[in-house]
Amino acid sequence: MSKKRVIIIGGGFGGLSAALKLKDSDFEITIIDKTNHHLFQPLLYQVAAAALSPGDIAMPIRAVFRNYKNVHIILGEAYSVDKDNKTVSVNGSNIKLDYLILAPGSRHSYFGKPEWEKFAPGLKTLDDALYIREKILLSLEEAEKIDNKDLVKKYLTFVIIGGGPTGVELAGAIAEIAKQTMIKDYKRINKSQTKIYLVEGLSKILPAYPNDLSDRAKKDLENLGVVVKLNSRVSEITSEGVTAGGEFIESKNIIWAAGNQVMPLIKSLGVETDSAGRAIVNPDLTIKNYPNIFIIGDAAAVKDSTGNLLPGIAPVAMQQGAYAAKIILRHELSSSRPPFEYLDKGIIATIGKAKAVALIKGLKLKGFVAWVTWSVVHIFYLISFRNRFRVMAEWIWYYFTKRQGIRLIVGRSKRTE
Amino acid sequence: MSKKRVIIIGGGFGGLSAALKLKDSDFEITIIDKTNHHLFQPLLYQVAAAALSPGDIAMPIRAVFRNYKNVHIILGEAYSVDKDNKTVSVNGSNIKLDYLILAPGSRHSYFGKPEWEKFAPGLKTLDDALYIREKILLSLEEAEKIDNKDLVKKYLTFVIIGGGPTGVELAGAIAEIAKQTMIKDYKRINKSQTKIYLVEGLSKILPAYPNDLSDRAKKDLENLGVVVKLNSRVSEITSEGVTAGGEFIESKNIIWAAGNQVMPLIKSLGVETDSAGRAIVNPDLTIKNYPNIFIIGDAAAVKDSTGNLLPGIAPVAMQQGAYAAKIILRHELSSSRPPFEYLDKGIIATIGKAKAVALIKGLKLKGFVAWVTWSVVHIFYLISFRNRFRVMAEWIWYYFTKRQGIRLIVGRSKRTE
Repeated sequence: MSKKRVIIIGGGFGGLSAALKLKDSDFEITIIDKTNHHLFQPLLYQVAAAALSPGDIAMPIRAVFRNYKNVHIILGEAYSVDKDNKTVSVNGSNIKLDYLILAPGSRHSYFGKPEWEKFAPGLKTLDDALYIREKILLSLEEAEKIDNKDLVKKYLTFVIIGGGPTGVELAGAIAEIAKQTMIKDYKRINKSQTKIYLVEGLSKILPAYPNDLSDRAKKDLENLGVVVKLNSRVSEITSEGVTAGGEFIESKNIIWAAGNQVMPLIKSLGVETDSAGRAIVNPDLTIKNYPNIFIIGDAAAVKDSTGNLLPGIAPVAMQQGAYAAKIILRHELSSSRPPFEYLDKGIIATIGKAKAVALIKGLKLKGFVAWVTWSVVHIFYLISFRNRFRVMAEWIWYYFTKRQGIRLIVGRSKRTE
Repeated sequence: MSKKRVIIIGGGFGGLSAALKLKDSDFEITIIDKTNHHLFQPLLYQVAAAALSPGDIAMPIRAVFRNYKNVHIILGEAYSVDKDNKTVSVNGSNIKLDYLILAPGSRHSYFGKPEWEKFAPGLKTLDDALYIREKILLSLEEAEKIDNKDLVKKYLTFVIIGGGPTGVELAGAIAEIAKQTMIKDYKRINKSQTKIYLVEGLSKILPAYPNDLSDRAKKDLENLGVVVKLNSRVSEITSEGVTAGGEFIESKNIIWAAGNQVMPLIKSLGVETDSAGRAIVNPDLTIKNYPNIFIIGDAAAVKDSTGNLLPGIAPVAMQQGAYAAKIILRHELSSSRPPFEYLDKGIIATIGKAKAVALIKGLKLKGFVAWVTWSVVHIFYLISFRNRFRVMAEWIWYYFTKRQGIRLIVGRSKRTE
């Protein structure tokens, strides 16, 4: 009797956690990912801010599973799923499956204005991060060349849209660049000319955090020189700048960290979704009528015990991936499966160097203590010893020298081929 | 009386060495470079082979001179020099100069066939290295997908053209990837299917080395699995492969490491050049009739005391840069300047892990001893303590684990803007 096969779509936190539990099992595992690496997304903003290298936070998926004969990796984009015939289509082939775990993550939503993406890139992949990094560095270089002080404004103004953890962390990192560290490399431009805005449509940043921690984060950002605009929905983005809360901000450096929407693949499944496009799943994370098809991570709408939607963060995806794998390993019939329960170990966000806010099992942390906790947790969860070593080395260097490590403009030249 | 200005075109070894000697002087120094960073080119092949990150071997020029008020940096391409009016044109402006040091490096020559570049990229910049790295990784991924064993051949065949140090080092590094290390990440393709060719038009590789060291390097390469084709000039390169020495080799992975030619800027100076386009300079490295204009590094044709042309290597450029700076600092009249003399500290090339050949003041080294020497020398000459630490850490990791560090396919997406 041939082995049963589990297909895992997505090599991020959800997919990888599932695969790690299923390696060494009797199943054939096939992981499909559009990139060849697992990305530690919580630190992606540091690649965009030239503080870490891509190699510090990413690991080839093949390397993770090198020694496991039952784990196969396909570099490609799964473009359709046939639920009844039990196949996934990728790279022109149909692959048969017994179980399917969909963990494709999420994309940015531009609130019905996809044309904004050209002017306000998002931050989901290494390619995004390097593009943003280069944009920032080239803006500073451009400003350095210009004689007319009025014309430099748009190159020295940075706007981050979205006051969730990604936006907050990015705003803090860019404020450090523009007010404290990298700006000192330049002879003609100086920190009094740079401006950083964090734009949020709701009445507070970090919506998932208690009010006092959100306030603290806002103050910490303001101390770094960030202008935090609350209650300011974006109404227009052009090549010249962004209009938010009725105010036009002239800027060539707009970064989108708001609004998630779900991948087309999920839409094509024909499952019920919520308003953000996340799939409605059963308590055991499977879709209606198909107990062998799981959707996990950002792509799934799952509620906790109090009825609140679980956030699209790494720990949720990791626990869901491990859960789905265990269900599969035990060959459990859908009738006897325990529901998924998220063990909330806490949430944490950093604001620049040496400050953070955290909520861990009811305990609130702020400032330096929170930041140390954040550092330790993130180092711990990096997937390989090697990456832990490198990130730690970069952070220690930065902490003492205040120099971002990777301020390189490589030149993303277009090549004809 | 206003300060005199030295313009340095090029932030590589030659230009940077000159600038380092001129910082803290009475001169205003302006460095013009097309990229924002100084690149340690001897290790560039390791970025292409996914063993090092860009950030390990490059440093922003601004960071090097951050604390020196008299050093200014312009990101741009100098496109013309007016020798008589003493100006350089860059970014639409003319900058006045008292002295000019041209250190623009060299470009690849495709022997009159520029159309070959599309199929056989060269290795001069970080952008080149990352492009080659991605090409190699994607080829392996492509081969992994293909069922038909005949069709995979071209994805698993690697051809390096040019048997100088760059070609030799690259061939050794790729042989390790394709025969020993990275290939083990894959489940369907294996090392018996991969082929690596080093193609050289002359009768030996490493032309500048004694014959016995060239032979030793050839043997070391063959032990790594490289097929070394001597006396094989390239007559055709297409998207399907390369024809060299009358033999057609089917390959999607062709890398050009042969033939240098000089930058257009040098040509536009109207100075006499040799057959490779290198500028003929006076014994004091200045051009005829202009004692304030120096050309150094790969761009200059300079002979040593025995009448041989100095090679286009880093130590030559560094010594020439320091020499030109000293001449300028002493305000020496051309009649009293001592001629430039190159102090040959040796040449050294590595072949894969733990092997190298070196000629140091008549002393020949081979094997492991030569490789340790190579490592130490290269670490020493890296420009910053931080880069030294990082490269050393990567090499130690690789030596013990046999895993290349940076096997990332980032996806060089084209963006419209």
